Amino acid sequence: MTKIPSTEPDNEADAFRDECGVFGIFGKVDAAAVVTLGLHALQHRGQEAAGIVSYETDSGQFSIERHVGLIGDTFTKQAVLDRLPGSRAIGHTRYSTTGGEGLRNVQPFFAELAVGGFAISHNGNITNALTKQRELQKRGAIFSSTSDTETLLHLIAMSTHDSFTEKFIDAIKQLEGAFSLVGLSGKKMVGARDRLGIRPLVLGDLDGAYILASETCALDIIGARYVRDIAAGEVIVISEEGAESHFPYAKTNSRFCIFEYVYFARPDSNIEGLNVYEVRKRIGQELAKESPVEADMVVPVPDSGTPAAIGFSQQAGLPFDLGIIRNHYVGRTFIQPTASIRNMGVKLKHNANRDAIKGKRVILVDDSIVRGTTSQKIVQMVRDAGAAEVHMRIASPPTRASCFYGVDTPETSNLLASRLSIEEMKDFIKVDSLAFVSIDGLYRAVNEPGRNGSCPQFCDACFTGEYPTTLRDRDNTDVTRKLSLISKHG
Amino acid sequence: MTKIPSTEPDNEADAFRDECGVFGIFGKVDAAAVVTLGLHALQHRGQEAAGIVSYETDSGQFSIERHVGLIGDTFTKQAVLDRLPGSRAIGHTRYSTTGGEGLRNVQPFFAELAVGGFAISHNGNITNALTKQRELQKRGAIFSSTSDTETLLHLIAMSTHDSFTEKFIDAIKQLEGAFSLVGLSGKKMVGARDRLGIRPLVLGDLDGAYILASETCALDIIGARYVRDIAAGEVIVISEEGAESHFPYAKTNSRFCIFEYVYFARPDSNIEGLNVYEVRKRIGQELAKESPVEADMVVPVPDSGTPAAIGFSQQAGLPFDLGIIRNHYVGRTFIQPTASIRNMGVKLKHNANRDAIKGKRVILVDDSIVRGTTSQKIVQMVRDAGAAEVHMRIASPPTRASCFYGVDTPETSNLLASRLSIEEMKDFIKVDSLAFVSIDGLYRAVNEPGRNGSCPQFCDACFTGEYPTTLRDRDNTDVTRKLSLISKHG
Amino acid sequence: MTKIPSTEPDNEADAFRDECGVFGIFGKVDAAAVVTLGLHALQHRGQEAAGIVSYETDSGQFSIERHVGLIGDTFTKQAVLDRLPGSRAIGHTRYSTTGGEGLRNVQPFFAELAVGGFAISHNGNITNALTKQRELQKRGAIFSSTSDTETLLHLIAMSTHDSFTEKFIDAIKQLEGAFSLVGLSGKKMVGARDRLGIRPLVLGDLDGAYILASETCALDIIGARYVRDIAAGEVIVISEEGAESHFPYAKTNSRFCIFEYVYFARPDSNIEGLNVYEVRKRIGQELAKESPVEADMVVPVPDSGTPAAIGFSQQAGLPFDLGIIRNHYVGRTFIQPTASIRNMGVKLKHNANRDAIKGKRVILVDDSIVRGTTSQKIVQMVRDAGAAEVHMRIASPPTRASCFYGVDTPETSNLLASRLSIEEMKDFIKVDSLAFVSIDGLYRAVNEPGRNGSCPQFCDACFTGEYPTTLRDRDNTDVTRKLSLISKHG
Amino acid sequence: MTKIPSTEPDNEADAFRDECGVFGIFGKVDAAAVVTLGLHALQHRGQEAAGIVSYETDSGQFSIERHVGLIGDTFTKQAVLDRLPGSRAIGHTRYSTTGGEGLRNVQPFFAELAVGGFAISHNGNITNALTKQRELQKRGAIFSSTSDTETLLHLIAMSTHDSFTEKFIDAIKQLEGAFSLVGLSGKKMVGARDRLGIRPLVLGDLDGAYILASETCALDIIGARYVRDIAAGEVIVISEEGAESHFPYAKTNSRFCIFEYVYFARPDSNIEGLNVYEVRKRIGQELAKESPVEADMVVPVPDSGTPAAIGFSQQAGLPFDLGIIRNHYVGRTFIQPTASIRNMGVKLKHNANRDAIKGKRVILVDDSIVRGTTSQKIVQMVRDAGAAEVHMRIASPPTRASCFYGVDTPETSNLLASRLSIEEMKDFIKVDSLAFVSIDGLYRAVNEPGRNGSCPQFCDACFTGEYPTTLRDRDNTDVTRKLSLISKHG
Repeated sequence: MTKIPSTEPDNEADAFRDECGVFGIFGKVDAAAVVTLGLHALQHRGQEAAGIVSYETDSGQFSIERHVGLIGDTFTKQAVLDRLPGSRAIGHTRYSTTGGEGLRNVQPFFAELAVGGFAISHNGNITNALTKQRELQKRGAIFSSTSDTETLLHLIAMSTHDSFTEKFIDAIKQLEGAFSLVGLSGKKMVGARDRLGIRPLVLGDLDGAYILASETCALDIIGARYVRDIAAGEVIVISEEGAESHFPYAKTNSRFCIFEYVYFARPDSNIEGLNVYEVRKRIGQELAKESPVEADMVVPVPDSGTPAAIGFSQQAGLPFDLGIIRNHYVGRTFIQPTASIRNMGVKLKHNANRDAIKGKRVILVDDSIVRGTTSQKIVQMVRDAGAAEVHMRIASPPTRASCFYGVDTPETSNLLASRLSIEEMKDFIKVDSLAFVSIDGLYRAVNEPGRNGSCPQFCDACFTGEYPTTLRDRDNTDVTRKLSLISKHG
Repeated sequence: MTKIPSTEPDNEADAFRDECGVFGIFGKVDAAAVVTLGLHALQHRGQEAAGIVSYETDSGQFSIERHVGLIGDTFTKQAVLDRLPGSRAIGHTRYSTTGGEGLRNVQPFFAELAVGGFAISHNGNITNALTKQRELQKRGAIFSSTSDTETLLHLIAMSTHDSFTEKFIDAIKQLEGAFSLVGLSGKKMVGARDRLGIRPLVLGDLDGAYILASETCALDIIGARYVRDIAAGEVIVISEEGAESHFPYAKTNSRFCIFEYVYFARPDSNIEGLNVYEVRKRIGQELAKESPVEADMVVPVPDSGTPAAIGFSQQAGLPFDLGIIRNHYVGRTFIQPTASIRNMGVKLKHNANRDAIKGKRVILVDDSIVRGTTSQKIVQMVRDAGAAEVHMRIASPPTRASCFYGVDTPETSNLLASRLSIEEMKDFIKVDSLAFVSIDGLYRAVNEPGRNGSCPQFCDACFTGEYPTTLRDRDNTDVTRKLSLISKHG
Repeated sequence: MTKIPSTEPDNEADAFRDECGVFGIFGKVDAAAVVTLGLHALQHRGQEAAGIVSYETDSGQFSIERHVGLIGDTFTKQAVLDRLPGSRAIGHTRYSTTGGEGLRNVQPFFAELAVGGFAISHNGNITNALTKQRELQKRGAIFSSTSDTETLLHLIAMSTHDSFTEKFIDAIKQLEGAFSLVGLSGKKMVGARDRLGIRPLVLGDLDGAYILASETCALDIIGARYVRDIAAGEVIVISEEGAESHFPYAKTNSRFCIFEYVYFARPDSNIEGLNVYEVRKRIGQELAKESPVEADMVVPVPDSGTPAAIGFSQQAGLPFDLGIIRNHYVGRTFIQPTASIRNMGVKLKHNANRDAIKGKRVILVDDSIVRGTTSQKIVQMVRDAGAAEVHMRIASPPTRASCFYGVDTPETSNLLASRLSIEEMKDFIKVDSLAFVSIDGLYRAVNEPGRNGSCPQFCDACFTGEYPTTLRDRDNTDVTRKLSLISKHG
Repeated sequence: MTKIPSTEPDNEADAFRDECGVFGIFGKVDAAAVVTLGLHALQHRGQEAAGIVSYETDSGQFSIERHVGLIGDTFTKQAVLDRLPGSRAIGHTRYSTTGGEGLRNVQPFFAELAVGGFAISHNGNITNALTKQRELQKRGAIFSSTSDTETLLHLIAMSTHDSFTEKFIDAIKQLEGAFSLVGLSGKKMVGARDRLGIRPLVLGDLDGAYILASETCALDIIGARYVRDIAAGEVIVISEEGAESHFPYAKTNSRFCIFEYVYFARPDSNIEGLNVYEVRKRIGQELAKESPVEADMVVPVPDSGTPAAIGFSQQAGLPFDLGIIRNHYVGRTFIQPTASIRNMGVKLKHNANRDAIKGKRVILVDDSIVRGTTSQKIVQMVRDAGAAEVHMRIASPPTRASCFYGVDTPETSNLLASRLSIEEMKDFIKVDSLAFVSIDGLYRAVNEPGRNGSCPQFCDACFTGEYPTTLRDRDNTDVTRKLSLISKHG
């Protein structure tokens, strides 16, 4: 889940951020502890906050814990896990708890429905959530958050269908946009992907227990077996009797988010049959073929540029070298301490490895350029360290359009590629040459012959501006009224 | 607001506990700071948690803060007050955050209604809340707490009336039980008392700003002027245009809670025209007249027995003396440190003043006897200190029945007076004599000629078992299903 | 222990503050839990911070815990007590952790001496501590706090005597000023009072375990037996073999702090054979005899004025009434929320009971006048409530001089009585009449025929300016150099 | 500083841990903020706790802050920095706050000496600290920690020399072992390295302000200029007049810790003229020359094995690939949640990249083998992922002996290489082949022709067992008496 991207430029964030990871397990003692491990493996999908809901069959009771901070700092305490008994549990890790909202938007969400309790975790963004919210409020629904996920809960609650599964399907059929969902009722765990399958969701097995997770790396951490990817438009309903699948939507081609391969997913995950690390290496190889340059070394912008840099290096026959060192201790909360030292050119996160670079012609490989400010700083740092030439190669096409499917992106107008040509970008970031992989090159790296313009195989809206769904809330000016409650603590 | 009294005996609590205090102000800069002071003066009505919602007219935005702990430890921090801007604010202080419920039941509650935001603070208990909750859930309402106050919010949200005031009145007309409410919408502050006026609510004025508060002591702390008590069954709607009153109920005689005079209210408050301290002294005088005894000194069980002891002493012509000293540093969180010292007869809260008592015939005066365990301990302590005789005089009739109107009481079966005769109670607490003020003596102390049996002037259900309203939830076995979510953190 | 009184006027503090309570037990399982209870009973002697050191004979190890806050909020947690194993323990509760000093000055202090570990708790103030500190620093001692107690540790460490007991006695013989000490070594618990016995210290017994405590109320809480007061100048050394006493000083008359009877000690404590509550009542009686006035009621300024008000009322034959109600929820940390409401005349701590006072001639009884600002406010509040006349009676002589013996007092120049005559004070606090008990009246209340001017029976320096010891640090300008470290966190 | 390595096997720690980083700046506004940044760059030298002492010339006052946790979470708060005013400051980051010791051993340490305040940060370990401590205690010194650094403070305090600089030099001349020190007095900042220069220390310049830091990466982060390494045995004294150097020891050859190049230092740091990353690549090249093997790919054990793996890959002409992915969110505090899932083979930190490895002959490159347990797990993980062969190459000689110079190492008997031959180690970790770089190969990587056996150019005791200093405390059974105080909180 996410909100409509902020209208205010955020100078800090110079990257796309996937907003969530989801994980659920059904039928394993200490389920919450397993979810904790799964969320830890999905931490790259959201580092700001996390939550777990467990269900204990004996007592018929749910428990919920939600905390701001890394999983490893919050959910690993015995006291926390002790408050989450049961053999079924779902969890959620999220990117941002913006503004003063505190824990209000931290998932899973829980509702006491007439048919019993229900908890849900959501990765993605429902593009008609506010439109639906206005309809629901007119029917008397009370919202306690700004989250699109709460809209889903109300649609379930107000559904006139009889069984829980029918209510759930009735509700998600009213949703537009992107969603990979994991839900937990008193009897069932449900998983669902939107009809285009924009966000990932896989099914795993651990000694007979069912697992749903955003990525396969969350199966690996606990030694679970990968079974299959949940299909686009599939609803899987898991109970003590086993799993059954529903396909409530008309059949259509899927449109998985290609940026998951470029940046979001962990390199050791496999998605829809492809290994992410191998895809990234192949993007680097495509780049080297498309935009070769004479140089002494290939240097990744760590860590996200590393696989493509290895691919580029191998294709180009140039040495791969760590010319930039990353300080992994940087949290997002590191605030530059005082105004008076802001001008020191402080290098909190990256430092050039001066002796490795000095006098060399360097090819820098990064995954993408968003606002361009980070690239500018890194290039300047590499030049200050004495590089003779600096060539930049980017392992994705220029990002020209905002994402509305669960990724935190700047407004389109703040994307460097939406304002400048590649030549102008080259001047802006002050490199000797700049090249992006072509859109067809990117498709080749995911084993397609190229992009099928009439029926694209992936969602690539951030590169092409072609959104695969309507964007009802964005186009519906009536729903943009802000909520009344701006600040909530406790 | 409160929940149905627990069915489990709670050995710790040997007193009735009023569960809430409410306070609101409309039209004063730094309104939240004023509410903080008002809640501080009402701290005796609930010490466990508190919350404030403020509204800023310029931005049209609400802000909310809720914290566990004493007002003076939580809401006095500048950072907290800075997050509560605006010239209108309401607050709430409450007794208990039972079990693992954390902040979920801490008020004010806030809802984003179709017509805008609305916050509410509630003192009392709605006796048909669960019945209404089941109806609302069947219509698709989602509840996020076990609070009866949330039921009210849903009734407002689902009302088909047009204006906010009409919706509010429509909703409260469906409520049964006891409630003194203070609500805040984007345009108005509303106050309301149930048709019997069971819980208190007064109107005050501070330099033209309207104030609603549970007791007059909350006006005194800020130097506000007492205007009048809100009438039983009155709805007062305050806006920039001024205040207007509605009386949506059929006219009936009020039934104010007489136990507020006995114990709950602060002695310096005036309620319905009577000063609480003077009432308590008069109860002591009635006791001295009804049940005199030859003795050397009158000793209060501090602090609640002190005013009645003064009255008794003056009426009886016996010296008033501090034979028991209270340690005011005892919080409710003081846990007896280890099992091995539980048997020391630890005196955390009260200590006998040995030299004052030794060899004396002592009359102990206390406000009430609930389970009797505290009285037992205090009498033993006084005897251990060398008292020659111990006579106990109680400034209320025997408490025989549970309260369902917002007071935390033991189950009826755990009330000593429901099981034992006065003679048996005398033996149980091991005193030389024991007497309670008569029900008519109590009525005389509040300036009535006596109790009017056919049409009692007050709610005295805890003494008489005569409940002035139906108790729909209690009598409706269908609604007692527990909620699914037992534990929520964060 | 304490520091030289601050040179800066502190407008908040309008009372004398005793700075510490001490407690130790030798030979009882879960000793730290017993100390926790003892300190809880001594909380009135210091509310800001506390510490406990325990010793476990089996392991031969000490453990220490120190926390800011009330005992009942910090030391009652099981985890804290679990970290304090052993059957011997001493503790300390203190008034103030001024400035940025954090836990640095919180006691007990612990030192690893050449002969083993040693912990100490101190109530009082050593008036030559800085002078000794300079000497010790010149010999190479490193100080980690500003505390006079640390000076004592260094004197022990640098003593050339052989046994621990001899080192301890050697050290305290070098001290001037006031000290009641409880110390714990690997083999012994020691107690000591300065040669004048300025601060209190009593010996108790709990099932054969030895107890040392500041006041008897700390024995009562755990049902321990009072044995005797430690004598002025006595050193008691407790070991598994029993207790032995040393008297290292030349014999002299004791000079116990008479203000302990007036205000510091708890009313249910007995000190040197006298019950504090009874002394206070007798002071009220003396006042009524010395300075009678025609009036309708006697009203205590709660809580410290209450016993004297009872005594006054009984002697004068006037009714005792609670005309002022105290809000016990006020902590010292309650900060007036914003500048804009400072002028509301906020009554955080006391409220006049309007109906009780209106139209009446009121005698207010308080324990002392320090700066006079509190008296001013209370008188104004009582007048605003409609009192016809306000007469103030003070249960101590005028306080004219600062204390240097472990009490936090304003500079002499900030004491109202040091600047104004009684007549001028009457005008300053705006009462119809003002009277203080005479110094001889005060001595009569403690069962003396009057003050023996040539050889006063008590330390009454705050009333008379006659200090019973030299004040070496005060008179030695060389030692007043401030320490280099002003702020320490962590 | 450090303590004698623990005698208890610690199954968790399977790596050597450098225990500290130091940083100081003299003459820059907001000095504490600069130190914060410097410590952030040195975070790899100690992640558990940190401290800063600042000095403000105007007030002549020191301030100190010490916190447990990462710099970026603790010292970047404005409130913390505001409590550290001044243009001079030193800091310290440390590895471990073992046991219940809380903040007691967190540096810098501060002492109020007779000549004024003095703060000190220490990297290394003084091997005669306990011996000296016993001597000092017999002279009356009181120790408040178990730290060898406190011994140094006492030696300064007890020095009979006149000036501060002379006292400092007098004290460090009595020390044996390894130390890189940064100290701050009211007038001076001092830096010192032990006579063998075992631990690193460099001098930097930022707009005229002097900087002392453990590594050059701490200069880079703030854009400071590297001036030179402080020489072995050098004492540098910095004042407003500039810097002057003292050489109090007899001249000898330096013995810098060669393991700093292998593992401790950051790859972008230069030490004694050599770039750490380049040294590590050269070790990988030496390994490839000494122990080649036919394979399909070179896979680093991330992150510490990466530079050597690149060197190996380039020398061997084999592809470098990320066959193992590291989860950087793992903190050291991640506790495996419950016993029941301990057997899942949870992979918190490393995951095999299955698709990259499957069916391949893999050369794993790691920096060292300590206990061997981590290597075992990683090899098993790589085999489970389907590797056809697994060959291990280690970028250091076998570690056979504990370090006593400021590195946290297991007891010698717990080092795998102290118990097993290389062939046995191969079987233990279950690889197809295992090779370590030779000691001469390692010396060649640091530009030496080989190890000079009669006069080794570096400290390589962990590989050779040849300690370059006496180990007085270790050999002096008299000093091993444990301290009395085991647990201290607050």
